[in-house]
Amino acid sequence: MEVGFIGLGAMGSHMAANLVKAGHVVHVWNRGRAAVDRLVALGAKACAIPRDAMRGDVVVSMLSGDVAARAVFIDGKVLDAENASKTVHVDMSTISVAFAKELTALHAKKQVAYVAAPVFGRPQAAKAGTLNIVVAGPDEAVERALPLLAHLGQVFRLGEKPQHASVVKIAGTLMIGCALEAMAESAALVESHGVRASDFFNIVNNTMFAAPVYQSYGAIIAERRDVSVPAGLALAERDINLALAAGADENVSLPFASQLRDNLLDARAHSDADRDWSFALANVARRRGGLT
Amino acid sequence: MEVGFIGLGAMGSHMAANLVKAGHVVHVWNRGRAAVDRLVALGAKACAIPRDAMRGDVVVSMLSGDVAARAVFIDGKVLDAENASKTVHVDMSTISVAFAKELTALHAKKQVAYVAAPVFGRPQAAKAGTLNIVVAGPDEAVERALPLLAHLGQVFRLGEKPQHASVVKIAGTLMIGCALEAMAESAALVESHGVRASDFFNIVNNTMFAAPVYQSYGAIIAERRDVSVPAGLALAERDINLALAAGADENVSLPFASQLRDNLLDARAHSDADRDWSFALANVARRRGGLT
Amino acid sequence: MEVGFIGLGAMGSHMAANLVKAGHVVHVWNRGRAAVDRLVALGAKACAIPRDAMRGDVVVSMLSGDVAARAVFIDGKVLDAENASKTVHVDMSTISVAFAKELTALHAKKQVAYVAAPVFGRPQAAKAGTLNIVVAGPDEAVERALPLLAHLGQVFRLGEKPQHASVVKIAGTLMIGCALEAMAESAALVESHGVRASDFFNIVNNTMFAAPVYQSYGAIIAERRDVSVPAGLALAERDINLALAAGADENVSLPFASQLRDNLLDARAHSDADRDWSFALANVARRRGGLT
Amino acid sequence: MEVGFIGLGAMGSHMAANLVKAGHVVHVWNRGRAAVDRLVALGAKACAIPRDAMRGDVVVSMLSGDVAARAVFIDGKVLDAENASKTVHVDMSTISVAFAKELTALHAKKQVAYVAAPVFGRPQAAKAGTLNIVVAGPDEAVERALPLLAHLGQVFRLGEKPQHASVVKIAGTLMIGCALEAMAESAALVESHGVRASDFFNIVNNTMFAAPVYQSYGAIIAERRDVSVPAGLALAERDINLALAAGADENVSLPFASQLRDNLLDARAHSDADRDWSFALANVARRRGGLT
Repeated sequence: MEVGFIGLGAMGSHMAANLVKAGHVVHVWNRGRAAVDRLVALGAKACAIPRDAMRGDVVVSMLSGDVAARAVFIDGKVLDAENASKTVHVDMSTISVAFAKELTALHAKKQVAYVAAPVFGRPQAAKAGTLNIVVAGPDEAVERALPLLAHLGQVFRLGEKPQHASVVKIAGTLMIGCALEAMAESAALVESHGVRASDFFNIVNNTMFAAPVYQSYGAIIAERRDVSVPAGLALAERDINLALAAGADENVSLPFASQLRDNLLDARAHSDADRDWSFALANVARRRGGLT
Repeated sequence: MEVGFIGLGAMGSHMAANLVKAGHVVHVWNRGRAAVDRLVALGAKACAIPRDAMRGDVVVSMLSGDVAARAVFIDGKVLDAENASKTVHVDMSTISVAFAKELTALHAKKQVAYVAAPVFGRPQAAKAGTLNIVVAGPDEAVERALPLLAHLGQVFRLGEKPQHASVVKIAGTLMIGCALEAMAESAALVESHGVRASDFFNIVNNTMFAAPVYQSYGAIIAERRDVSVPAGLALAERDINLALAAGADENVSLPFASQLRDNLLDARAHSDADRDWSFALANVARRRGGLT
Repeated sequence: MEVGFIGLGAMGSHMAANLVKAGHVVHVWNRGRAAVDRLVALGAKACAIPRDAMRGDVVVSMLSGDVAARAVFIDGKVLDAENASKTVHVDMSTISVAFAKELTALHAKKQVAYVAAPVFGRPQAAKAGTLNIVVAGPDEAVERALPLLAHLGQVFRLGEKPQHASVVKIAGTLMIGCALEAMAESAALVESHGVRASDFFNIVNNTMFAAPVYQSYGAIIAERRDVSVPAGLALAERDINLALAAGADENVSLPFASQLRDNLLDARAHSDADRDWSFALANVARRRGGLT
Repeated sequence: MEVGFIGLGAMGSHMAANLVKAGHVVHVWNRGRAAVDRLVALGAKACAIPRDAMRGDVVVSMLSGDVAARAVFIDGKVLDAENASKTVHVDMSTISVAFAKELTALHAKKQVAYVAAPVFGRPQAAKAGTLNIVVAGPDEAVERALPLLAHLGQVFRLGEKPQHASVVKIAGTLMIGCALEAMAESAALVESHGVRASDFFNIVNNTMFAAPVYQSYGAIIAERRDVSVPAGLALAERDINLALAAGADENVSLPFASQLRDNLLDARAHSDADRDWSFALANVARRRGGLT
């Protein structure tokens, strides 16, 4: 299949590579040239501007949020590409519900098929092709994209409205954040009474909470593993702010999300901007309790 | 084995029955006579006062919290029973960390072996013998209790200090409450944007959150299942207040616990006192967002 | 003095009128024509576009926030007016700290003197000329503006950096919101125990809290006065979001502000969008407690 | 008048002294002997046990909370004193609403007139006789107490139910705590942007918030005045916990109170247990924002 791929960041570079390895002809664009070169070395074809990547049967985009997506789709006039209306645009970025609606309207106006397909999973999962992908858009367009998405992970379909995929992605990430804060507070609580957090998590995370989120992040929290993630908190704040914004759009207050927002700021004020948010939130909980 | 069993409530009655069925001679006491009669019909022996049940190799107690436990252990002078020092007292009640410490001191003074063994699990799990039991106490005493506990569920050992089992039970329940609130808020969020909560949970609770707590409570929340639990909120409030108290003992603030406390009050003010807390918290989140 | 005046809303129309009455020649512009006509009837001179009002010794602007101010100052290219650099621009709008900084840079580039002078006070105070005005900007520019501001209210000077006035205005409004929520919760608390809120406020608001904010809003809360304010909540949310944004700029978490944000959403979800925020927040507190 | 006085702590010692100075015959009791001796030196008469002070026309008690009051009134069987039913008992302690109700029932049973008269004001105000006193109880009893209370401060009457005075005292203190946190957050906010808190408070606390609470505590916060108050935080926590308990009694959630509780724990975890709560809360807000 001939496809376009826009956005070769920590996630997109792995995803595009998987498409190349699967034998597709992939036209790639990225804001920075180095990532493009790496993909070309794997067999991809370089595009000089985003619009050039708007070609083939399917175009996948993976950008870092509303700002980057707006710069490319709106300011970069990607949808004005000559053959845009012949492709299906599958945007896998995490964007706001409001912007997903705006993009739906814009694609309709430009007569380009639009599918939203945000993902759960970190760069390792992107590399392994084991992302969880939430897909929403017109059936016909989704059908065309499915064979491609199968290389990237497991697909969950969610009907025809792109913004539904967006809100599911946002709500799911909120649930992750809540799980982290719950573990952070619980770890501080048991530690303050002399119990090792690892002993505690060994019990609850192997029974009631025997799920990937708890087990992977629980280990980081228990062992105070200083996991470096460049701009990790900025990403976490983006996600929590997306939840708060989506709630505000419909008058839904989310007190746990508000607390997470406050705690992420606390973490940033204490030099954890470049750490995984599990580590950062655990530091906040322990620091408040005087546990260091 | 000859054992005592104090407290035949929704949990204890099933647990004592399992011990009887396993062939043990079980001397039972309960505040209300009806529950005693039911156990006697299964083969247990009735005790007129708690102190009479303080006999045999092991005495298990399962009471509804600090108040009930204090009434029996302190006011009822159970530890003054003639052969108390020959038994091992295994208290499986959920009690405060402070009271666990007080009981440790009292047992030491009275020379009665004391093991704390609070459990995770609801009455169905008590009936099925599939509780998760957190055990802490002197090794020798724990060893004597283990064969008995094996009839009741899976055992997790946690060292020699009884209060450590107490804080682990409390922190684990806090994590459950946080998971419920996280699902309640997320369900309200996706619903406000037109996505069914069941569609959302089908995705996240079968992947990142594929764990018993999420799957069982997620169904209640998604389907707005009006699960009746007599005094359900009072029990939930007891548990969250235990977490807040354990935190306050050591100056550890727990913002998610504080939020849960507030939301449980909101639920109680809106006639959900006798509902499962998952249902009640979901109602709070939806009501605040005007979703009904 | 010859002055310009941009923005004749609920506040600005009174303020401009006061300048006219004081004998100044006032060139007014407003997005809607009706407000301009009313001022012209009082003796002001109409401007067709904002840039036409950028004339005279001082130009005052009073717009409804970042969006409106950006539309006029940036998109409307007001600072490119022919004689802009001969005037002093006194912006009395409530805007974000970030935008105040941006405006400072823009004015410097365009060589227009810029003074920030946001106000505390509602339309009645604007009418009465009793606003509290927080003024920051270059001394010379401030000196030129002072005689004019004297017609509008009491001036508090705060140094040379315009954004300092902005953050003081924002923080002061946060304090008002906190006072409202404090009264809302306290009123619900005493009422739930059978004490009239008015009896309670008669005590505390005449002693410890004998201040205008408490006395005026306390009466609204106690008497459940259904004060209609078109888009009242939107304005309140704007102000609280400005506080949260200013905090986030510098990693300062503001838990009371977060709570206010959540409660304002709750109010909006319950049809209080067009009410004074004191009334709306009191409704939230009472509704949560089942007091209606 | 012949009166009894029970409880000579930081507040009670000044209050009893004022009664002595006003010419009354005051029979005093206190748990510690030293305070009794100081009052005797002023002209009071010493009592060996609390019950001995239960005499005369009016008996005033000023104890440090439920625990101390319970020890004296219930365990100390003060109401069983021979002439108890001839006196009017005016309890000026800050106690829970629930305990005020319990005391009402107990006094009724023992046929002793009971007036609740908790106060707003710190030891300096007790010394100066400028307390604000909230009085509730049977009219006849209150009338007898009024001449005495006039020596201690300004009286606000609140009907016949003693617990009404209790909840008003509790709600008023909650409002103080909220004002402190509001100032703490606002101070952190303006400081993070380079504005001195004192410059900010000079504006808002002399206009909208021109009230004693804001002006006295605002100075402490702005100047980071390290005000030592032995067990200051314990007292503050007692008061906030009273509010939370009174709310929980009637299902009223108080989110600002919950936040205050959390922040006081944070302060305690950071060695501010013996500081005024204004100073302690300001430290929490600044520390979270990385401002030190």
